[in-house]
Amino acid sequence: MAKKQEEFVTHIARRSEDFSQWYTDVILKTDMVDYSDVKGCMVIKPYGYGVWELIQHEMDARFKATGHKNAYFPLLIPESLLMKEAEHVEGFAPEVAWVTMGGKEVLPERLAIRPTSETIIGSMYSKWVQSYRDLPVLMNQWCNVMRWEKSTRPFLRTSEFLWQEGHTVHATLEEAEEETVRMLGVYKEFAENVLAIPVITGQKSAKEKFAGAEHTYTMEAMMQDGKALQMGTSHNLGQNFAKSYDITFLDKDGALKYGYTTSWGTSTRMIGGLIMVHGDDRGLVLPPKVAPVQVEVVPIAQHKEGVFEKANELFFALKNAGLRVELDDSEKSAGWKFNECEMKGIPVRVEIGPKDIEKGTVVLVRRDNFEKTFAPMENLADTIKTLLEDIHNNLFEQAKARRDAHITQATDFETFKQGVNGGFVEAMWCGERDCEDAIKAETGATTRCMPFGEHKCLSDVCVHCGRPAKRLMIFAKAY
Amino acid sequence: MAKKQEEFVTHIARRSEDFSQWYTDVILKTDMVDYSDVKGCMVIKPYGYGVWELIQHEMDARFKATGHKNAYFPLLIPESLLMKEAEHVEGFAPEVAWVTMGGKEVLPERLAIRPTSETIIGSMYSKWVQSYRDLPVLMNQWCNVMRWEKSTRPFLRTSEFLWQEGHTVHATLEEAEEETVRMLGVYKEFAENVLAIPVITGQKSAKEKFAGAEHTYTMEAMMQDGKALQMGTSHNLGQNFAKSYDITFLDKDGALKYGYTTSWGTSTRMIGGLIMVHGDDRGLVLPPKVAPVQVEVVPIAQHKEGVFEKANELFFALKNAGLRVELDDSEKSAGWKFNECEMKGIPVRVEIGPKDIEKGTVVLVRRDNFEKTFAPMENLADTIKTLLEDIHNNLFEQAKARRDAHITQATDFETFKQGVNGGFVEAMWCGERDCEDAIKAETGATTRCMPFGEHKCLSDVCVHCGRPAKRLMIFAKAY
Repeated sequence: MAKKQEEFVTHIARRSEDFSQWYTDVILKTDMVDYSDVKGCMVIKPYGYGVWELIQHEMDARFKATGHKNAYFPLLIPESLLMKEAEHVEGFAPEVAWVTMGGKEVLPERLAIRPTSETIIGSMYSKWVQSYRDLPVLMNQWCNVMRWEKSTRPFLRTSEFLWQEGHTVHATLEEAEEETVRMLGVYKEFAENVLAIPVITGQKSAKEKFAGAEHTYTMEAMMQDGKALQMGTSHNLGQNFAKSYDITFLDKDGALKYGYTTSWGTSTRMIGGLIMVHGDDRGLVLPPKVAPVQVEVVPIAQHKEGVFEKANELFFALKNAGLRVELDDSEKSAGWKFNECEMKGIPVRVEIGPKDIEKGTVVLVRRDNFEKTFAPMENLADTIKTLLEDIHNNLFEQAKARRDAHITQATDFETFKQGVNGGFVEAMWCGERDCEDAIKAETGATTRCMPFGEHKCLSDVCVHCGRPAKRLMIFAKAY
Repeated sequence: MAKKQEEFVTHIARRSEDFSQWYTDVILKTDMVDYSDVKGCMVIKPYGYGVWELIQHEMDARFKATGHKNAYFPLLIPESLLMKEAEHVEGFAPEVAWVTMGGKEVLPERLAIRPTSETIIGSMYSKWVQSYRDLPVLMNQWCNVMRWEKSTRPFLRTSEFLWQEGHTVHATLEEAEEETVRMLGVYKEFAENVLAIPVITGQKSAKEKFAGAEHTYTMEAMMQDGKALQMGTSHNLGQNFAKSYDITFLDKDGALKYGYTTSWGTSTRMIGGLIMVHGDDRGLVLPPKVAPVQVEVVPIAQHKEGVFEKANELFFALKNAGLRVELDDSEKSAGWKFNECEMKGIPVRVEIGPKDIEKGTVVLVRRDNFEKTFAPMENLADTIKTLLEDIHNNLFEQAKARRDAHITQATDFETFKQGVNGGFVEAMWCGERDCEDAIKAETGATTRCMPFGEHKCLSDVCVHCGRPAKRLMIFAKAY
């Protein structure tokens, strides 16, 4: 048995030895995802899609609670429409997949598969928005998008991915700004309270902002290898798209004005994030709120009288209490089941055997820290719900402590270089593009964000070029 | 006021005068949908998408209850992969949109935007299915698909549409057949119990079956103009796709065998169906279970003391009771609000004014038959829930009675021709393709299905060609 367990686990590379291989092993061996025959496109298997469904469910409720409604806009965007906002085109044209034929006919105009939908949605908003009474427009879309990527990794960067994109129109710049900040706040609350991932929110540099935005806000998380993952962004588009797509409204004062638009998005990339933040050498560690299976019931010596019946009874009791629970009554050995359950990151395992039944207890095993406790069968659902809360909190605190331990404050470039090798660096920066490019060329690190709510001043000068610096920037290597 | 109401309503064509224009007026004026800049592609606006979300919610629960899990497969299918099943290619190639460029590079192989996903899913199943232990595979996908259509109508036929497609693999033909029938049963139960649409289920002719299927089952509904709408189909694919995509498994007896696959789908087309089955000259009539707003609260003389407060209180009471409710406290006149509410097909309107408050009652107005009743404010949510059930049942019965009154049994071709002019015809048919084509050419009617569970024999000979006939076929003009 011991040998079998060992074999089972050694299929996964160790994080400390090869983090990238560990990631690939985990996502493939846990049936989260698979490669397809289409270059750069992934298949999201039921276990991975189950996580996405829970993410959608949680986020969608938050979007609706903040007044947004879902809609659906076309997949294809005529080239001429895509080309109307100059900066946007420059940013997205290189990675667009083009439809040039419909049936046997060559199309008169190429159609882009949406890389994002500001352009097609802008053209509709132009039609729908007439008066200040029509504002604000608050919509969201759940859909697939496509960006023709050269090198891809499942969830993190694929040519096609699933996401949500919010698109709003407002009467004033202030309202647009408020919306941009509000939705980033929704993202942060979601990341922390649902995914158990601590995030740093702040503003992107001019280079890293969304193509066509006035400015972009982001939430950045630290993966276990110290690299950053951008988990979601929110853009104040000012009047840029309103002017390109003619979104005007008759204001209260009788004047025709351009609207102010925002957009904000998160994607299946977040699944890559939660894997790389919480996983360990045994495999996935899923945060309870997005775990497709929260509890696995494993009968011990299930051929013995009464075991299977009791396990089944518990399974239904937990299910009826609203837990996502599975009963593994297969012929596999208990050890094998334990390993599988751990690899798949199921938050709580319930073991029940003849001795437990005698005592009226079960064994509960937490996935996050492998802690084993005996618990009475009575009120088991409540016990487990409390345990799931604990696990969520522990995962969050653990990730936060790990992240905070890997943030370096640098006032000299030697410290900076060491810091970005396995972590985030806080440093003063001049704000100039040439300096940003040079830092990236020398260290591989990019500007992640100018964090909100902090006015730390580590020095008067840029950590790299020595020119005057006013803002603190977070730098890191990133996915 | 009377004049304003009149104006408001006359924007919609009458069904009896121009059913097609009525449909277009209704979907555009109720903000269900809009045309886009992309040929043949629609924008589903929040009110229409709200119906789709409710449809998804109801169907998804049924798929999961029958053991299916959701997954996501790539949008793009390499041409060589699409081409492996000969009959399938022939059926779908003429209406495929082709991606030929990624960024600035011409692709080495054209990629089809999925018209349906048997091919790409088959290629993955080939990899995933190894042993009889892996069977059955029961998956479903919610996604967009594209079929390059020449003439399009929102919801009914568009180049891009949203749908679900189930794809399963089984060890035996019997199990595949069982699944095919089971899922058509799920569709029928859904159509009747959720959409309040009576459907006839049965088998398609060889001509009308899915390209590549052994046979196709369908559910057909009658629209108010007597035309048929195919609302969902379920295909037993036999071993056709298993052989083309190499889906094999090692059976219990040690032999390597091809699996048997099925697929089944329904789409946003169902929204077109429920509009054309239930709508009337005032606009939409939404079946309560998929109405984004089930109850509209309209305060009467809302400037009078206490009215707005009481309306608001009722609104929250209904909302907390789980009803989908809206309060219209805008400055529009009550008459205008009533019309809008009727046009949008909201099942129940609650009117509350000073007199009602005195008496502790409200006025309830049903959308389906405009019946007005007084109801006590106490337990209003329960009263309305019962009313919504009544409305659902009435809509179903009304649609069924209308349909049944427009089904003609024909044993001669004159009766047949009259019958398909505004209804369905039941007739005996020879089963030959040339006859099917001739009937279509002469009358515009197509074979809809050989209905399940009926063994009516109207005659020994085909209604059109006089050759021997064994099966009853339903014919109709169709969308």
